[in-house]
Amino acid sequence: MMGSSVGKLQTAVEEIVDEMRGMSERGTVASYIPELACVDTKYFGIAVIESDGNVIVGGDGDVPFSIQSISKVFTLTLALGKVGNRLWTRVGREPSGSPFNSIVQLEREQGIPRNPFINAGAIAVTDLILSGHQPREALGEILRFMQFLADDPTVTIDQEVAASEHRTGFRNAALANYMKSFGVLDNPVDFTLGVYFHHCAIAMSCRQLAMAGRFLAQNGSNPSTGLAVVQPERARRINALMLTCGHYDGSGEFAYRVGLPGKSGVGGGILAVAPGKASIAVWSPGLDTTGNSRLGQIALEKLAKKMGWSIFGA
Amino acid sequence: MMGSSVGKLQTAVEEIVDEMRGMSERGTVASYIPELACVDTKYFGIAVIESDGNVIVGGDGDVPFSIQSISKVFTLTLALGKVGNRLWTRVGREPSGSPFNSIVQLEREQGIPRNPFINAGAIAVTDLILSGHQPREALGEILRFMQFLADDPTVTIDQEVAASEHRTGFRNAALANYMKSFGVLDNPVDFTLGVYFHHCAIAMSCRQLAMAGRFLAQNGSNPSTGLAVVQPERARRINALMLTCGHYDGSGEFAYRVGLPGKSGVGGGILAVAPGKASIAVWSPGLDTTGNSRLGQIALEKLAKKMGWSIFGA
Amino acid sequence: MMGSSVGKLQTAVEEIVDEMRGMSERGTVASYIPELACVDTKYFGIAVIESDGNVIVGGDGDVPFSIQSISKVFTLTLALGKVGNRLWTRVGREPSGSPFNSIVQLEREQGIPRNPFINAGAIAVTDLILSGHQPREALGEILRFMQFLADDPTVTIDQEVAASEHRTGFRNAALANYMKSFGVLDNPVDFTLGVYFHHCAIAMSCRQLAMAGRFLAQNGSNPSTGLAVVQPERARRINALMLTCGHYDGSGEFAYRVGLPGKSGVGGGILAVAPGKASIAVWSPGLDTTGNSRLGQIALEKLAKKMGWSIFGA
Amino acid sequence: MMGSSVGKLQTAVEEIVDEMRGMSERGTVASYIPELACVDTKYFGIAVIESDGNVIVGGDGDVPFSIQSISKVFTLTLALGKVGNRLWTRVGREPSGSPFNSIVQLEREQGIPRNPFINAGAIAVTDLILSGHQPREALGEILRFMQFLADDPTVTIDQEVAASEHRTGFRNAALANYMKSFGVLDNPVDFTLGVYFHHCAIAMSCRQLAMAGRFLAQNGSNPSTGLAVVQPERARRINALMLTCGHYDGSGEFAYRVGLPGKSGVGGGILAVAPGKASIAVWSPGLDTTGNSRLGQIALEKLAKKMGWSIFGA
Repeated sequence: MMGSSVGKLQTAVEEIVDEMRGMSERGTVASYIPELACVDTKYFGIAVIESDGNVIVGGDGDVPFSIQSISKVFTLTLALGKVGNRLWTRVGREPSGSPFNSIVQLEREQGIPRNPFINAGAIAVTDLILSGHQPREALGEILRFMQFLADDPTVTIDQEVAASEHRTGFRNAALANYMKSFGVLDNPVDFTLGVYFHHCAIAMSCRQLAMAGRFLAQNGSNPSTGLAVVQPERARRINALMLTCGHYDGSGEFAYRVGLPGKSGVGGGILAVAPGKASIAVWSPGLDTTGNSRLGQIALEKLAKKMGWSIFGA
Repeated sequence: MMGSSVGKLQTAVEEIVDEMRGMSERGTVASYIPELACVDTKYFGIAVIESDGNVIVGGDGDVPFSIQSISKVFTLTLALGKVGNRLWTRVGREPSGSPFNSIVQLEREQGIPRNPFINAGAIAVTDLILSGHQPREALGEILRFMQFLADDPTVTIDQEVAASEHRTGFRNAALANYMKSFGVLDNPVDFTLGVYFHHCAIAMSCRQLAMAGRFLAQNGSNPSTGLAVVQPERARRINALMLTCGHYDGSGEFAYRVGLPGKSGVGGGILAVAPGKASIAVWSPGLDTTGNSRLGQIALEKLAKKMGWSIFGA
Repeated sequence: MMGSSVGKLQTAVEEIVDEMRGMSERGTVASYIPELACVDTKYFGIAVIESDGNVIVGGDGDVPFSIQSISKVFTLTLALGKVGNRLWTRVGREPSGSPFNSIVQLEREQGIPRNPFINAGAIAVTDLILSGHQPREALGEILRFMQFLADDPTVTIDQEVAASEHRTGFRNAALANYMKSFGVLDNPVDFTLGVYFHHCAIAMSCRQLAMAGRFLAQNGSNPSTGLAVVQPERARRINALMLTCGHYDGSGEFAYRVGLPGKSGVGGGILAVAPGKASIAVWSPGLDTTGNSRLGQIALEKLAKKMGWSIFGA
Repeated sequence: MMGSSVGKLQTAVEEIVDEMRGMSERGTVASYIPELACVDTKYFGIAVIESDGNVIVGGDGDVPFSIQSISKVFTLTLALGKVGNRLWTRVGREPSGSPFNSIVQLEREQGIPRNPFINAGAIAVTDLILSGHQPREALGEILRFMQFLADDPTVTIDQEVAASEHRTGFRNAALANYMKSFGVLDNPVDFTLGVYFHHCAIAMSCRQLAMAGRFLAQNGSNPSTGLAVVQPERARRINALMLTCGHYDGSGEFAYRVGLPGKSGVGGGILAVAPGKASIAVWSPGLDTTGNSRLGQIALEKLAKKMGWSIFGA
């Protein structure tokens, strides 16, 4: 049943898994969330789901990890579904030129985060999902959305990671309080932060994550159901935001090297999208200085080159 | 000889020209270069060159205008050809999150501009092209490169615009002196600025500009000659830089709305690339608050949507 | 018993009270603390206590008001007494060149506030006073210190103002959490903020405040007791900090116009010190754009000129 | 003829000269002006001129050095005499919270420097002195003013230092061009910079410099002539500016430790003023990290303490 394209992809994934296994410089595990600081850098996982439904999983592609900021792609999608373009009165659409947790830009721009993928922006998006509900309800809605997209009801939240972030997330608390002072958040700061820390603590494997990302590779529709998750234009626009803002202050570099929309998390995962072709998830816990998975980026660069998937030309 | 695809493009271009003619809010002409301040906002031109060689020109697509910062795409290409990846020790590859002429970022990053498409970065690139030669020689080389790419030996420099910029370009002089103080420029500041002001003053029509941009849409090769201008990987990477950094602090917005790599100039021109499909040039002198052509962006958004050319999905 | 100097001061104060009564542009009451927003700008009070013990009070000099940031002079004094120069590992001694609640500087300098008189610095100082105790105890200690210095056990905290600040003090919560993320605060953020909001809500009249400031005018000693509150060198240094940092981003202007060390609060009060000569308190609730009492500054400029009290020359 | 006060000062100066001779950590000579980089850190000079005319000179107090930024006190005085308070539309009066050559603040505040003692501010002041004249004339005026104040016609400009700065002063050229782009400079950038580089290159001994500063210690009058150089209020205000802004980003520290208005230069000199008491000049070429003379500051701290000259209390 495997056609030659599938065979080519299978070979590419196997080669990459082999190469990544041998890499000695594997980056540094994020230290600021205690629960994440003890993850071993030996892991490397990958999952690719092509538009025709073929699934290739390699390495530790079935080991769950903390998706962290990758959740921001899905909370953005959910929030756009709830409040539409009104969302853009609370969050901008420009790259920040700053680290993921910078507060300087917020002062210059009166509490409006530059984009929904830096921490401040994602907190503002979470606040829109909350919109007066109890944190538990909002969190349930986010989790069900992830389970639905991944077509897997076992996706869950790692409560220890969530608690660890809550105990130590002073910088995010600073960002949230700062935005609150400008009226950018509607809900109590603790409510919004609680939901934010918990959705960042969702644990998924590469396979589950690639499943959840399929709608972005397929013009907004979920192939499990054939129904639209979002309209095609919205899928394109989320991809555009991932391309320009998905890797914090390494976004330009990722576009330059990999040439695919993608969103990274400090847990070491990256979700990437080859529009019309594939949804891809990689994971390796060691990060580079911009906070993006070192091996994950290298693996995606190799995959995009081997498969000719760059959106910037053959 | 016109196939249905050509017919569809022809129709799309005609509709856009009509729509743009009727637009009342046409933006504001750049005032800081006196020679540009007197251009009429009534103009709108467009040229599209498909990969099979078909050329569609509409509106004022044969009227020459000052390409200004669009020249930065070509000087980057030329400099990469001369010094290769050593260029990236002088200039970064990240969006700046700042206006085109900001000097703040330079102080934070020790004189290294964030990317080759903000003014400081393009001045540093120009300095690499100069590399010890006389300004006249370097400028001749740039101009011949443009004529070669456009397949048109009549492309020329508007000396009055160049002189006007030289007289009033204090902010660019500040950027250049600032980089010089960090050792980022090798040549005398006046030499580098002289070449920079002159290549920004190159005058081209949309037709000529779209011709010059063909290699970026066609994996690096020039269809007039069939020879490679750059390797495919370099073409992809220049496209990636245009996508993330091509519209200053409006780059995220352009990616979000249009979904194509593009580079704008304060003369009101934009060069856009649909990889594998077409090279596109639009021109309308009125700018929005981020310094990008107001009608040009709208026209490109419409064209990309009508033709399904977004790189982020169908 | 009144000598000519006392007569001269009495006359000066009376003239100033008269002039201030007639001023039409009285500034704007701080709006961000709801309880303060309703204070009438009609008030003007002044109290001057000369080194020989003479007390001159004018206008509304016996009406209590919220001393707000003026409390920072006293918490600094108290904290220096408790931890000595170790305090300066947590807080700098340079003017900030920024508004009182700026967070930008904290990012640049890794969570270390520039000086003890901007909000972030005063929160860090409060944290040192807390040093493991319960908020109630620390607050009691601060209040007793104020009562002792003012020689008046009726000095108290306005609980409604404190509660109002606690409800709305998101920007201060941002500053505190931000410093906590850098390890600059030792205690739970809520504890430190609780004490901070309460000591800012101390209510005092000009008479009480001028009494409390006497030790700064008299080389560190409290004339009521004859004992040293601080050593002379420390008094000089606190005066120096008031001169360079006491009026936020209006400190240079205050030094230029008035020529005396001083500390303002957004409640409209200013404590000023003429070393060796007098302790002075003024109060008028209307603020200028830098957050300093408009009439208070004018009154002090007039008083310093009439009395020849500028520290910068006769 | 020497009274006890003179004896005390003589002893104090002698002790300080001895102590400074033995100091091993002498700071680092400014390297960015080649002509200054070769000065030996062994030098230490001091001169104190009391209000009654007594002159005490110690160490290398008669060796000329490059006064550099100390010249800014005198160009400010001269410019205020020419254009009065209109000067303050071009330059602010607040500490900058930034290094002496920062350009960031200029962008935030539209080309208006924060104060006349950072480089940008002093360049703007120099531009006001030029006001349409030839550089040579303006420079002559400045030099004659210095000779008049120092009561010494031999004060001169070190042309090699001036030429060295002109060749390498790219950062100052950046500042000047930047201000020019906002219309803050009236004259050609090269003219203004030429005068600026030359007045910074004035060479004086401590004795000459202390002579030149006498008017600031004596309410604006020149004791050689008995005539007013400036009105008393202006002298007070210049002193206030020196206190808040005279040592760049070390101004708060200088006020805290020394407690006297002062202005430093990267040549290692400092002019300090004890209002009503003395004009003081010290010189030692080694600088600390804020660009101020390391031994100069220590010597002034000791002198102020020994003599009880702090303006902040006995």
